[in-house]
Amino acid sequence: MNTNILNIQSVQLDDEHDTLLILDQTKLPNTHVVLKLKTPDEIWDAIYHLKVRGAPAIGIAAAYGVYLGAKQLDITDVDAFLEAFIKLKHYFACSRPTAVNLFWALDKMQACVNENKHVSVSDIKIALLAVAHQIKDEDALVCKSIGQHGLTLLEKDMGLLTHCNAGQLATAKYGTALAPIYLGYELGYNFKVFADETRPLLQGARLTAHELMAAGVDITLICDNMAATVMKNGWVDAVLVGCDRVAANGDTANKIGTSGVAILAKHYNIPFYVCAPTATIDLQCVTGDDIEIEQRKAEEITEQWYTERMAPAGVKVYNPAFDITDAKLITAIITESGIVRAPYEKTLNGLFE
Amino acid sequence: MNTNILNIQSVQLDDEHDTLLILDQTKLPNTHVVLKLKTPDEIWDAIYHLKVRGAPAIGIAAAYGVYLGAKQLDITDVDAFLEAFIKLKHYFACSRPTAVNLFWALDKMQACVNENKHVSVSDIKIALLAVAHQIKDEDALVCKSIGQHGLTLLEKDMGLLTHCNAGQLATAKYGTALAPIYLGYELGYNFKVFADETRPLLQGARLTAHELMAAGVDITLICDNMAATVMKNGWVDAVLVGCDRVAANGDTANKIGTSGVAILAKHYNIPFYVCAPTATIDLQCVTGDDIEIEQRKAEEITEQWYTERMAPAGVKVYNPAFDITDAKLITAIITESGIVRAPYEKTLNGLFE
Repeated sequence: MNTNILNIQSVQLDDEHDTLLILDQTKLPNTHVVLKLKTPDEIWDAIYHLKVRGAPAIGIAAAYGVYLGAKQLDITDVDAFLEAFIKLKHYFACSRPTAVNLFWALDKMQACVNENKHVSVSDIKIALLAVAHQIKDEDALVCKSIGQHGLTLLEKDMGLLTHCNAGQLATAKYGTALAPIYLGYELGYNFKVFADETRPLLQGARLTAHELMAAGVDITLICDNMAATVMKNGWVDAVLVGCDRVAANGDTANKIGTSGVAILAKHYNIPFYVCAPTATIDLQCVTGDDIEIEQRKAEEITEQWYTERMAPAGVKVYNPAFDITDAKLITAIITESGIVRAPYEKTLNGLFE
Repeated sequence: MNTNILNIQSVQLDDEHDTLLILDQTKLPNTHVVLKLKTPDEIWDAIYHLKVRGAPAIGIAAAYGVYLGAKQLDITDVDAFLEAFIKLKHYFACSRPTAVNLFWALDKMQACVNENKHVSVSDIKIALLAVAHQIKDEDALVCKSIGQHGLTLLEKDMGLLTHCNAGQLATAKYGTALAPIYLGYELGYNFKVFADETRPLLQGARLTAHELMAAGVDITLICDNMAATVMKNGWVDAVLVGCDRVAANGDTANKIGTSGVAILAKHYNIPFYVCAPTATIDLQCVTGDDIEIEQRKAEEITEQWYTERMAPAGVKVYNPAFDITDAKLITAIITESGIVRAPYEKTLNGLFE
């Protein structure tokens, strides 16, 4: 295995130089550009424009972003610092609405501040750095654990299908949906993986195909609308996807198109697995209806990437970035704490007890 | 209604100048280029490269192509002409494999030659021209009739979803799947139409959105992977698609992605209608397994249209141009001779009795 790919850092702090290093994922697979971001505005922009993307990586970037912003505050009064910190946190919370890891990571940073109210601002800053690092370090462990649990559901020669990118690039390491694939590959498994290209932003083509191919995994790229045929051909034994948020009843928000893949998998009796760090489980959301779905601009569909417009000027476009997969379509949710199945109201809750 | 769009000719013969005029659909929606094609090679190339596409339009182009080729043969001996004609016919039959209209139209031209063996070569050429014109003229009538039958299944304010382009551009006039939409629009119906963009060649974005918008129909463009969400939102009351070939049991070949849309429609209890001229019904094919599916090159997915590659160099790609929708997923097949439903073995056969 070419291990280089697993050494790629999608988000990395250079604390000495007050800089967040972000691999610009909008430039992949053609160019490997590492952005050096210093201000909260720059980091917010990188999240908003998907230069860093993937629920876990967004959480990590936001944690470091709020840390760097706090570090740069020229304030010594703790109350004034707290007030400025809350503003920073709210600012990052507006960067993208759907992935709960963003809010989860920001809440962890907020809790750190709350717990350290009694110490000096400079000590709070040190504590914030430790929490941000911890969020990243834990993510790598969480992903590896998801991979190990996921691997128990798979067999050596299986055909697997994945949608969007829930890999190394979306996390601190290994990915979520791709973690069982990487770990299986290390054990000599011969998975045949199909990657949906994932319109409109082509994360499957640009990122998943790129990272799995670089790692040496057998990967075949398809358009989203070919998944049904690949399944009908008998080439898919399991579907693995990541997620941006899981509601208390098991309904899951993930990249647009995921729910369609789940319906196809059900039609063809193929297990459909959601790989979810417990940080993506949001028990405050009763069902998927409570999850806000980000709507994005028409140009992503009509002209982005292209040499010229691919649709008539002024055409109406509907461009939701995520969809909700009904819990009843999900065979199991694979977390770092174990695999849970329906009834999800009960089993998801059990993970936190 | 802006009727201009319905005056567009996707294929038109200029017999005086031995020229076939083809609207280059690969250049839409940005440029309106009419190709002036004179040789069988040029016309074959236009079919192969989808400059003219859509099952009925392919049939029309091939009929005119074989006519022009035959007209240009400098042969007076009837037997030698017949031999050369058969070569021409086989040549066009290799241009694309899936749409049966191609073979149907070529067979009609061959039948014309066979029936006129006793007359002079120049008279055979005149007879061939008449048959080619007839194929085109009948297509417009067939499409209008499909539209009228289809309209009986629809109501005024329905949301409709279509995949690929089975419209004016794919036929002599009105289209197949879009015919009920055009006819309904003329009657003041307020259809809300969703067009799947239809990767990789984007016929939905480039052609369907273009022609429906030009006609004044309420059209919203979506990526293929958004169809499930649009259905879940309750915005789709019926799906209308065209087809390239219908097997005797009702299994239907159409643009890649159609079978996935059919599975989604079934999941959401939405009627799924295939609009099929009887010329696309191939009783020689017992089931969809007997229909050859055209495989196309990887570049259509990885780099065509784009400013740069959208997938890693050398990545494996699976790119079938069509898929087979199982008969059991099809609510009804709408033909110019009426609407048929399961059991299709019986009802399709009945259309020809």
